[in-house]
Amino acid sequence: MQNVFYAQSGGVTAVINASACGVIETARSHPGRVGKVYAGRNGILGALAEDLIDTSEESAADIALLRSTPGGAFGSCRYKLKSLEANRREYERLIAVFKAHDIAWFFYNGGGDSADTCFKVSQLSASMGYPLQAIHIPKTVDNDLPITDCCPGFGSVAKYVAVSTLEASYDVRSMARTSTKVFVLEVMGRHAGWIAAAGGLVEDQGIPVVVLFPEIPFEEQKFLARVDAMVKQHGFCTVVVSEGAHYADGRFLAEQGSKDAFGHAQLGGAAPVIAGLVREHLKYKFHWAVADYLQRAARHVASKTDVEQAYAVGAAAVQLALEGRNAVMPAIERYSDEPYKYRIATAPLSEVANVEKFMPREFITEDGFGITEACKRYLRPLILGEDYPAYRDGMPVYATLKNVAVPRKLPAFDL
Amino acid sequence: MQNVFYAQSGGVTAVINASACGVIETARSHPGRVGKVYAGRNGILGALAEDLIDTSEESAADIALLRSTPGGAFGSCRYKLKSLEANRREYERLIAVFKAHDIAWFFYNGGGDSADTCFKVSQLSASMGYPLQAIHIPKTVDNDLPITDCCPGFGSVAKYVAVSTLEASYDVRSMARTSTKVFVLEVMGRHAGWIAAAGGLVEDQGIPVVVLFPEIPFEEQKFLARVDAMVKQHGFCTVVVSEGAHYADGRFLAEQGSKDAFGHAQLGGAAPVIAGLVREHLKYKFHWAVADYLQRAARHVASKTDVEQAYAVGAAAVQLALEGRNAVMPAIERYSDEPYKYRIATAPLSEVANVEKFMPREFITEDGFGITEACKRYLRPLILGEDYPAYRDGMPVYATLKNVAVPRKLPAFDL
Repeated sequence: MQNVFYAQSGGVTAVINASACGVIETARSHPGRVGKVYAGRNGILGALAEDLIDTSEESAADIALLRSTPGGAFGSCRYKLKSLEANRREYERLIAVFKAHDIAWFFYNGGGDSADTCFKVSQLSASMGYPLQAIHIPKTVDNDLPITDCCPGFGSVAKYVAVSTLEASYDVRSMARTSTKVFVLEVMGRHAGWIAAAGGLVEDQGIPVVVLFPEIPFEEQKFLARVDAMVKQHGFCTVVVSEGAHYADGRFLAEQGSKDAFGHAQLGGAAPVIAGLVREHLKYKFHWAVADYLQRAARHVASKTDVEQAYAVGAAAVQLALEGRNAVMPAIERYSDEPYKYRIATAPLSEVANVEKFMPREFITEDGFGITEACKRYLRPLILGEDYPAYRDGMPVYATLKNVAVPRKLPAFDL
Repeated sequence: MQNVFYAQSGGVTAVINASACGVIETARSHPGRVGKVYAGRNGILGALAEDLIDTSEESAADIALLRSTPGGAFGSCRYKLKSLEANRREYERLIAVFKAHDIAWFFYNGGGDSADTCFKVSQLSASMGYPLQAIHIPKTVDNDLPITDCCPGFGSVAKYVAVSTLEASYDVRSMARTSTKVFVLEVMGRHAGWIAAAGGLVEDQGIPVVVLFPEIPFEEQKFLARVDAMVKQHGFCTVVVSEGAHYADGRFLAEQGSKDAFGHAQLGGAAPVIAGLVREHLKYKFHWAVADYLQRAARHVASKTDVEQAYAVGAAAVQLALEGRNAVMPAIERYSDEPYKYRIATAPLSEVANVEKFMPREFITEDGFGITEACKRYLRPLILGEDYPAYRDGMPVYATLKNVAVPRKLPAFDL
């Protein structure tokens, strides 16, 4: 009977803990075949530092509460293992830690970079003769993993953005006669416009909305003409701009200049840039918002579909491991739009690692400022259903785990 | 049997329509004594322009749906009537329109500026011999009206800010080991820090939080030292900054340079300024968000207490009118913190108009960066309870009224 290592990686979401819940509850339901679930404190760093959390110390109630708790309950990290050639030492350390703690299953809960790490770990274990099963659990608000129909985490951000865009549009519509005529909401999405696309759903509620995608180079004149026409026709206009919106030459609308641990430029501030253009050229009164972490942490308005899928891929990881699978990822396979139906399929990590899924061109309207009916058909099921957390004294009840450390067995390791 | 004029004024809220619902449903429940409820299209401008909406054209179901619809269903405006001396013409026009449409009751749903207008109208009707009853229905997310324990609209923003601050803090806490250590959330509140104070409630959930109030001049060194200490102790820190935060000399942390119709400077961008200070002086990785309209439109996470109070003050306005009252405002009177108990009292408009209620100093901790237990006792009941809108296909069901115009009887009027 062997143990499980589970780690959360990269930017957290409103439902990554639902996947953790799926892993731990499913592992606990097989007491004869699965040992303990050890979580890495702060993701893969916890494995490298041999800083493991013994999740068996947590009560069933607290583990169940993970299903409705945003953020990463064990801590996440932005840390990409280098290639095997460049840093074999780190991979060997991982294997050493897993060996020392009888860990046979490696569950990595993350996005594209993490899928790559997970794939490398799966290869190394084979070449090093240590029988590890590495399974990737998909998670990313960016929705940019291939093969899977969508990524757990995305549906809830999409719901947050669609609902918030609708609500703010109701506000602007009320104010437009004498005050604000243009409202600009900046949302996440560095390379892929999936999150911004969700804002486009409010068109069905009669809201004049302009969406700016990273996939479509920003053309200032064309954009301003569109906003002006919307305001002249409807009295107001809502703009949803992706943080990754950029000019044809690659310059982002706003760049803060700093980079994250993966070397990606850290963005923010496209909304005030757009608002400034509206003020300067159209003279309309505007308001702008930047949702930032609020959007990906918004468990209070999570999509029920998303929560269920996040739990399901966590549970499926344990099932796949029990079936002896390695180097795979549970993936969501849609087989009906309406009513929405999906099953959990299996994708080989070799086809997942380092592949980024952008919005297909046919999901964006020809003028580049909205989403098509095909896109709406894709998005609608993902925001279906509400899954409210419990509240106490007006505030949501979210889990804070004890996170008890497993005693170390190995010498320290310099990161 | 005479008619009612109802108008929404100033910035709208998540629950101003619940007050409209309270007015209309209560008026409809007295068919023998109350005629039609006419709403001003875009607030008081609708009265000046004789652009009245006949709410009797709306179905009972649509009026009921107003209770859970954010924004201003009839349109609002930022338009402050000048003093009687400076612009007697506008006041006379109002009386003429009211006379032409048999309007005996004037219900003005707004904040401090609107209370002032409502008071002036009540005086004028007396001096002009037209028997109008002017009743102010309190509304403002800023929570800065005097006498009333709180202002409808505030409880829901407070809940949004408390919940969002908690959720984003869970996110930052997960990321802090290798990435973001400081999260900055900018909230509304030009002069009064009530909304920012709600962010301070997360302290009870173990979150290290620093709140910046307009009532406390910003001291850069002291602030940076506090954030640094928080990060060193807890690994991360959340900052909630009021848009009205300013230096001792009165300079706002961020000012966009434009002014609204009341001549108030339009603010925005304190969060990026704070984030820039953190980066420059502390070198911590940060994220920032500006909630802007999202906070005051967030009906999806409204406070049940707030919704009930908003409805109650609307209903009370009709009752007060039926009792023959003039120049008054229904006010919320708290008589127990725990369990929370309140009744609807009556405040004379002469004591409401042009009085702004700031945070009492004893609600802010001595160091100026947090809220006291007294403040928490005040705030907690206001965010109590959830009052979710209905959802269809993953989106909230919000009302969009027909807003049928009442035929005009008077010549046009130049604004």
